[in-house]
Amino acid sequence: MAEVSTDTFREIAERLRPEIDAALVRLTEFDDDCPSRLRDAIRYSLLAPGKRLRPVLALLAAEACGSERKQAIPPACAVEMVHAYSLIHDDLPAMDDDDLRRGRPTCHRQFDEATAILAGDALLTRAFEILATEIPDAEQSRRCLRELTRAAGASQLVGGQVDDLQFETLPGTADDLAKIHRRKTGAMITVSLRLGGIVAGASESLLTALTCYGDAVGLAFQITDDLLDVQGDEKAMGKRVGKDAGKGKMTFPGVWGIEESRRKAEQLIHQASEAVATLPCGGDALISLAHYVLERNH
Amino acid sequence: MAEVSTDTFREIAERLRPEIDAALVRLTEFDDDCPSRLRDAIRYSLLAPGKRLRPVLALLAAEACGSERKQAIPPACAVEMVHAYSLIHDDLPAMDDDDLRRGRPTCHRQFDEATAILAGDALLTRAFEILATEIPDAEQSRRCLRELTRAAGASQLVGGQVDDLQFETLPGTADDLAKIHRRKTGAMITVSLRLGGIVAGASESLLTALTCYGDAVGLAFQITDDLLDVQGDEKAMGKRVGKDAGKGKMTFPGVWGIEESRRKAEQLIHQASEAVATLPCGGDALISLAHYVLERNH
Repeated sequence: MAEVSTDTFREIAERLRPEIDAALVRLTEFDDDCPSRLRDAIRYSLLAPGKRLRPVLALLAAEACGSERKQAIPPACAVEMVHAYSLIHDDLPAMDDDDLRRGRPTCHRQFDEATAILAGDALLTRAFEILATEIPDAEQSRRCLRELTRAAGASQLVGGQVDDLQFETLPGTADDLAKIHRRKTGAMITVSLRLGGIVAGASESLLTALTCYGDAVGLAFQITDDLLDVQGDEKAMGKRVGKDAGKGKMTFPGVWGIEESRRKAEQLIHQASEAVATLPCGGDALISLAHYVLERNH
Repeated sequence: MAEVSTDTFREIAERLRPEIDAALVRLTEFDDDCPSRLRDAIRYSLLAPGKRLRPVLALLAAEACGSERKQAIPPACAVEMVHAYSLIHDDLPAMDDDDLRRGRPTCHRQFDEATAILAGDALLTRAFEILATEIPDAEQSRRCLRELTRAAGASQLVGGQVDDLQFETLPGTADDLAKIHRRKTGAMITVSLRLGGIVAGASESLLTALTCYGDAVGLAFQITDDLLDVQGDEKAMGKRVGKDAGKGKMTFPGVWGIEESRRKAEQLIHQASEAVATLPCGGDALISLAHYVLERNH
């Protein structure tokens, strides 16, 4: 594990990505009863250019808890599938109505709306199927399923999106905003880490450390996302910059100002780094990742 | 179990329904992080008037395999949630574009399209969460999850819907039609029975008998559904009769004629009854149910 200590997150992610993408392809092969158009739409969205942040977190968490990386391939793929499903559905005309995602047409623009809804449904279902079939230990499998269904459910990922849509038309405080993001983005980031820890056989105290790290990085990630939306370069982001602010959506820089937002993000990254500094295998890669969140430009 | 032998299915379903609906309410309580609008939409669709066919099948299968009915409450609720989610998404404007379901406005008409998509997503996720949290035995829990994720996935429920949408514009044979229905309707009916059997600790040979029964009843159900669409009384169906035929959709009576369709349905019900006649607790209620499928008028 020592070799990761001097890598930046971008290098780590570049190294892990072929392994992740190969597993995502393998786990979306399906049988002949799956219509080819559906498989195409699933893979179009799932394998789109992207950071693979959530699967990378799952793999790094397993390593930091002393396990081999490949142990965490099933949960890594499952969390990426839930993420891809949520993007497909969020982009639909009835929701955020986005035409571009990661610099390419969104799923419903590339295919059609019905196919996009169904590709999302199939990805969500497949994520849980993978946890039920690809994790050898029955108790670990069940615990991963309990945690991921909760994080993706009515109180977290889905509930956060409902409130986010409402929020476009309602006034709110910074606390409301943080609450939405904790559920809509934070819960999935934290559960990615925890699932990596669970399949590594981590103790409760290690899982708690991963949760502290995830909660802090998740919120910092959203703050920097909002900062990028205000300041970022359109090409680097692959979507129209200023879109959220332009819609009258509340953002962290809108509430706190740019300087204060940046300061809070730094504070969170510091907290996150402290939380994982004592993991069995050092957590150096997770610390690199936390710093990357702060410094990224897309 | 002897008391069910002379009941018709309608009486059995009426007796089980309060127990099923109470469990569906209890299992959709969620915590305060679930937006009330989302919970309302979930319950509006989940608790709508209906036969509760799939949960009744799960409960009766568990009883027929010698277990107490209440053992099968978690899988019974999970299959009904997957069914409710699939109806919500199928009714969306981008899919079948239906305004009425079970005699009431569809979810996206009663609420809005975004809420309907998200209520479906949350129901699907909650179904799997219930199997992961409410079944005491870890191996049974995992097996239920494996089977339900498969039945609800890209090759079965979702794939069947993709092909069904395609099929509206493509010519096809009776075999194509049966293949779509086996995946879109049959797989969920069969898995409802199997999940009831699994939590009852049924042997592989009992599960095979339940599968034979489910496959036959599932296809018969679709044939009688098509017959009702041609012949049925609009009020009893709660939806516009002749809708499928009016859209130019292929139906069984359209391929085989009304008499032959009725004969095939009778044959299937006979097969189904034979398959469950030897179950440990007689399977009398399942036989009643099979006959009800043949004779129902809505």
